[in-house]
Amino acid sequence: MLLACPDRPGIVAAVTERLLARGWNILSLEQHVEGKKWFFMRVLAEASDPEADRVGAELLALGERLDGTVRLHDPQQRMRIGLLVTREPACAVDLLVRGRLGQLPGVIPVVVSNRPELAWLGETFDVGFHHIPDDDRSEHERRTLELLELSGVELVVLARYMKVLSADFLRHYPNAVINIHHSFLPSFKGAHPYQQAWERGVKVIGATAHYATVDLDEGPIISQDVAPVTHQHSAVMMADSGRDIERRVLAQAVLAHLEHRIIIHERRTIVFHPDGLDR
Amino acid sequence: MLLACPDRPGIVAAVTERLLARGWNILSLEQHVEGKKWFFMRVLAEASDPEADRVGAELLALGERLDGTVRLHDPQQRMRIGLLVTREPACAVDLLVRGRLGQLPGVIPVVVSNRPELAWLGETFDVGFHHIPDDDRSEHERRTLELLELSGVELVVLARYMKVLSADFLRHYPNAVINIHHSFLPSFKGAHPYQQAWERGVKVIGATAHYATVDLDEGPIISQDVAPVTHQHSAVMMADSGRDIERRVLAQAVLAHLEHRIIIHERRTIVFHPDGLDR
Amino acid sequence: MLLACPDRPGIVAAVTERLLARGWNILSLEQHVEGKKWFFMRVLAEASDPEADRVGAELLALGERLDGTVRLHDPQQRMRIGLLVTREPACAVDLLVRGRLGQLPGVIPVVVSNRPELAWLGETFDVGFHHIPDDDRSEHERRTLELLELSGVELVVLARYMKVLSADFLRHYPNAVINIHHSFLPSFKGAHPYQQAWERGVKVIGATAHYATVDLDEGPIISQDVAPVTHQHSAVMMADSGRDIERRVLAQAVLAHLEHRIIIHERRTIVFHPDGLDR
Amino acid sequence: MLLACPDRPGIVAAVTERLLARGWNILSLEQHVEGKKWFFMRVLAEASDPEADRVGAELLALGERLDGTVRLHDPQQRMRIGLLVTREPACAVDLLVRGRLGQLPGVIPVVVSNRPELAWLGETFDVGFHHIPDDDRSEHERRTLELLELSGVELVVLARYMKVLSADFLRHYPNAVINIHHSFLPSFKGAHPYQQAWERGVKVIGATAHYATVDLDEGPIISQDVAPVTHQHSAVMMADSGRDIERRVLAQAVLAHLEHRIIIHERRTIVFHPDGLDR
Repeated sequence: MLLACPDRPGIVAAVTERLLARGWNILSLEQHVEGKKWFFMRVLAEASDPEADRVGAELLALGERLDGTVRLHDPQQRMRIGLLVTREPACAVDLLVRGRLGQLPGVIPVVVSNRPELAWLGETFDVGFHHIPDDDRSEHERRTLELLELSGVELVVLARYMKVLSADFLRHYPNAVINIHHSFLPSFKGAHPYQQAWERGVKVIGATAHYATVDLDEGPIISQDVAPVTHQHSAVMMADSGRDIERRVLAQAVLAHLEHRIIIHERRTIVFHPDGLDR
Repeated sequence: MLLACPDRPGIVAAVTERLLARGWNILSLEQHVEGKKWFFMRVLAEASDPEADRVGAELLALGERLDGTVRLHDPQQRMRIGLLVTREPACAVDLLVRGRLGQLPGVIPVVVSNRPELAWLGETFDVGFHHIPDDDRSEHERRTLELLELSGVELVVLARYMKVLSADFLRHYPNAVINIHHSFLPSFKGAHPYQQAWERGVKVIGATAHYATVDLDEGPIISQDVAPVTHQHSAVMMADSGRDIERRVLAQAVLAHLEHRIIIHERRTIVFHPDGLDR
Repeated sequence: MLLACPDRPGIVAAVTERLLARGWNILSLEQHVEGKKWFFMRVLAEASDPEADRVGAELLALGERLDGTVRLHDPQQRMRIGLLVTREPACAVDLLVRGRLGQLPGVIPVVVSNRPELAWLGETFDVGFHHIPDDDRSEHERRTLELLELSGVELVVLARYMKVLSADFLRHYPNAVINIHHSFLPSFKGAHPYQQAWERGVKVIGATAHYATVDLDEGPIISQDVAPVTHQHSAVMMADSGRDIERRVLAQAVLAHLEHRIIIHERRTIVFHPDGLDR
Repeated sequence: MLLACPDRPGIVAAVTERLLARGWNILSLEQHVEGKKWFFMRVLAEASDPEADRVGAELLALGERLDGTVRLHDPQQRMRIGLLVTREPACAVDLLVRGRLGQLPGVIPVVVSNRPELAWLGETFDVGFHHIPDDDRSEHERRTLELLELSGVELVVLARYMKVLSADFLRHYPNAVINIHHSFLPSFKGAHPYQQAWERGVKVIGATAHYATVDLDEGPIISQDVAPVTHQHSAVMMADSGRDIERRVLAQAVLAHLEHRIIIHERRTIVFHPDGLDR
């Protein structure tokens, strides 16, 4: 359960009392108050009681009474992920490897690329690979969207997908498109961030995973990480080091999304901690 | 409020219901369940009601009913800190500077050292400096303890204090003596850890703040941090880099203790997050 | 010795042969070639021979023949540092502490501030503190410059000095004014970077030490570092965490400058490694 | 060229003069002096002259005159790597992925495991997979060694290979067996390091890549890295986080070995920086 609402006394008591009354045991609870104005909470609970399901409607109603929103998820249900990739396959490979090794609570049924030479991704990891040419940009997007929906994709991951998605595309996947940008945003937006970083002479490079919005590189940030560089790093070496940061940052963001640990509030994200339960 | 007890359903509901009933508003709540067996919680709340104080006795009683322990603290009350230091003043200076700049929710009334040449610490930071010779070890400890108690010290910080404290001393300050060890424990216990680290050829060095126990360097760890080193670092350079890690790690641990964010459970610590309230 | 020149075969051989011939023993040598076009080198050497001084003129002449520049420094000579600070004293205090603890190969004879309430810095650390009001900005700058020159200051450190220096001031201290900016440049230039960072919802904050130039926040970067933040960090908490990054990054940059380990090339810096000699 | 010898004046001059005389252009040169007693250097150079090859014998002779050792390598030659893995495939997969993506200056012709269920590694990455049972430990080792030699393997990587190699095996691959240990050595040697780390309550976990020697977990360390953990991490979660550190640390070590950037000196390693040349 994810809850976001204006802050007021008694919210935790109201939610926990309800869960208790319906026979739910709380496994993990994390809350966050922002400036005494907004309240956010994530609760993971398990039920033994056959009547336990009735709590769902009650919590949704509670959310309404609190002028907020409640989202309920079943952690057993594995989300379906679609990967979009253009030239650089390292991030996509990393997610496919994690899927193969059982480290992702999700499945990747489909990979889409404008590059036919990436077809090996499909063969190697035994997923559906689709080459969709991008000579006609809107046709490319239309066919991609159709394919994703056909595959029942619920989360779209732009794993180094160097194209801007239209507002229409994003409307089909509200808050469900994650992009990896290969710089430490808001530094070096746009194209060739490593070259930009080299020219500026920075001593640390980074990567940013964020929800995609119509304003490119302006969406809510989910995770960021960095690595030190020196004058000895050319732009090419930065890109090499950067690849390891990118894949780590993207995997973190995707994992948080799959585990329903993210609430988007205006332009920022609340990313709750992993709940510490071994599965 | 800090609570530790065996895990069972309904704990959060019981606590939050009690606070609500007595007119307390929860500012921050963090809980942790360990292996479905132990439950730990920290709640920061503020009251408007004059009757609100009665909740204290109720929460203590609740703690007993849960076969656990409840500790209640008033965050307004500033703890009194005694610093013990032998040869290396950098960590002590750092805490004194943080006190001077208003970054510590505590006061440092007294610094004790076996080195008269550190008297400048007292003058520079306007605190009581006491030189207590250590030719007679037990006499040194007896006088130190007397002085700390006389100064109303509640937290003893061993800011690079290269002596072993007796079980008797520690009994006077249960779970209230923090030591900084200049290695990444459990690596390089005992004397000269940087020299040991150099000889082993490690590529990362670190520091560890922990509660002092009779088993030297074996107490519950509060915070640790590290920095990369290369073959270019001699043992002396490691010690130089290390000083910055030590003071950072020690300050983190002291801050967590002063903000009542630590529960010790067997040999481990639960260190709750800073509560995110601007003061 | 610091050398920057266009790359060509035989440079290392020419320099080392010259040093050998004049009885110098190389303690440390580091070179860097940028894109096969530019060559940079730092050599630390010691002489036993009384005639050894003659090598200085020879190396300067060699630099000219290579169409480059050679700078010679005596590491025994301790540089004189002037600190400029406005409201936030933490960075200035850190440098003063390092000076007091013997961790800086330089001396700090003078601290200048527009804030009379920072006079305690002078008393505490026994350095000349000068309050220079800034009602008249150009008068403030003129008097500051006069004072720095009178004190024989060779390196000016803007230790959280929230004012723009004129081109005229900078001309008096070419490549010798180091500024600390409390963000990870080029992100969040200008005022209130922590507030900007909070609004953008970044997950990592940072600090940047750079040479001051007339283009504010655009000078060559010397050092940068970062720390992770979460949604739990308010802008005030970011500023608190940030203070520790700032002082670390500034100290690194100042140390590199004092040890003559920096070459500025166009808009970037070559920062050679510490030479690994215990002093 | 890698050189290790007792320190004395004139070494750099002697080497660079020789290279210059034979028409070699130095692309990168890094040296290190340890305690004024030992001298280490790595030089990367390219030749245009057809006579340039004669420098090889001259440098080897120079090494002898300096009472040291000289090793010469051709960076164009790609080393052959054999992977040994038991239960945990993540590190092996990471190296195979890097090989597939062209990020390793080496080839992996062979993977050996005692687990038949890892056969998918061979199919997925199109390399020879060999299941060698380990019921008879010495027979397992004998067959493994035979296979590695047959495949022309020059570097053996123990990518989570939970077995002790005999002195005899190691004699066949002197200084050419790299192991990844899933703790921050010398902490938590031996079995189940994450469980040990959890029990000790550390706040940072790590991984260590080192050359394998007969003393288990005591060989010269090549690279180490760490990640923070909190009380919220169970031993299983530590193992999950740890996997990302392990693969990063192992890849760093393997890369340094493949690029001939490592000199082993007694129990420590000199790991020269990447030479900054784009390939």
